[in-house]
Amino acid sequence: MVIFTIRSERLAVLLRRRDKTPYAGCWGLPGGRVHADETLEQAAVRQLAEKTGITGVYLEQLYTFGDPARDPRGRVIAVSYYALVPYNRLKVQAQPSELAWHRVDALPPLAFDHGKIVAMAQERLCAKLDYSTIALQFMPEKFTLSELQAVYESILGEALDKRNFRKRVQALDCLEDTGEQFRAGKHRPAKLFRLKTPGRVEIIK
Amino acid sequence: MVIFTIRSERLAVLLRRRDKTPYAGCWGLPGGRVHADETLEQAAVRQLAEKTGITGVYLEQLYTFGDPARDPRGRVIAVSYYALVPYNRLKVQAQPSELAWHRVDALPPLAFDHGKIVAMAQERLCAKLDYSTIALQFMPEKFTLSELQAVYESILGEALDKRNFRKRVQALDCLEDTGEQFRAGKHRPAKLFRLKTPGRVEIIK
Repeated sequence: MVIFTIRSERLAVLLRRRDKTPYAGCWGLPGGRVHADETLEQAAVRQLAEKTGITGVYLEQLYTFGDPARDPRGRVIAVSYYALVPYNRLKVQAQPSELAWHRVDALPPLAFDHGKIVAMAQERLCAKLDYSTIALQFMPEKFTLSELQAVYESILGEALDKRNFRKRVQALDCLEDTGEQFRAGKHRPAKLFRLKTPGRVEIIK
Repeated sequence: MVIFTIRSERLAVLLRRRDKTPYAGCWGLPGGRVHADETLEQAAVRQLAEKTGITGVYLEQLYTFGDPARDPRGRVIAVSYYALVPYNRLKVQAQPSELAWHRVDALPPLAFDHGKIVAMAQERLCAKLDYSTIALQFMPEKFTLSELQAVYESILGEALDKRNFRKRVQALDCLEDTGEQFRAGKHRPAKLFRLKTPGRVEIIK
């Protein structure tokens, strides 16, 4: 499970510190075995809930890793999934001490081929940013356009022009005005938006 | 293995008639078990070579199917790959009688969840047509721009404007003029092109 969020304006991934060999003490991706009576996606949803308490977020199969040497214990085939968790959902989570969020651009060495798995998930996410509305899955229920722009900028690692960004978002036609406003300090109040169809990722033509 | 080609100007997929239960007599996708000492991709390359005699073509992991009920014999997880085979490579292949090419738009009922697998592969291929040079992988070593346009039209299922298509291909900058010409009947001779980097699929920005 590659579980992404945006934290302190940076793309971050949830890692678990391993307490057993191999790679004891090393950080790795959370995950586990597929049960006999569940689909692969059900197993991914269950792992996400067990490891983070989070349910109902965007989740997608990434890739299946099957190098015979990837696990020193024997042949283990890893069907990887990635999930996008809105950053506000994290505040309410009590995190077990062996779990921690790490910035994707400053990862420690990871167990097994997990570094390769995170890299592929990040590549997929960046590619999808170009041609889909996937980044909206990081947003809380209600958000301002400035908050949305900050999420895009943090994933892309570059500043975006405010006017162009707003035009692009408007063209997507997937947000609706909640009628509510958000006021921060001395700033002008900003409109709060929400997704028209939460959980749905549209392909941009 | 979802093995695609363009045959009689239609997208086609290679199917195998099953001789054993379950689904005896039914058409299904060719495939087999992964050996203990090979990667998933090596297994896919081997299956392609064993079933069709074809090597050195474009091949990519598609998706992993793991519904517990997908195989009545027990839990079988299928890591699917799709391959694109240039249509001229097929002429030299002696095809075993249990293997046959089927038009993707007129498939018979398929064994297991293979219909779902073909549908997903076709969806991926069509999506990639929009933002990559994947269709070039169907081409023989040397080809005319009219032949390339016919391949795009056959996958998309619609006619394309010749001038716009040529502009679009030129912008890709991935073909080179062989200096040779192809002359068919009374038509003007047409330039023969080849890929600058065979096997490489470029993402179009």
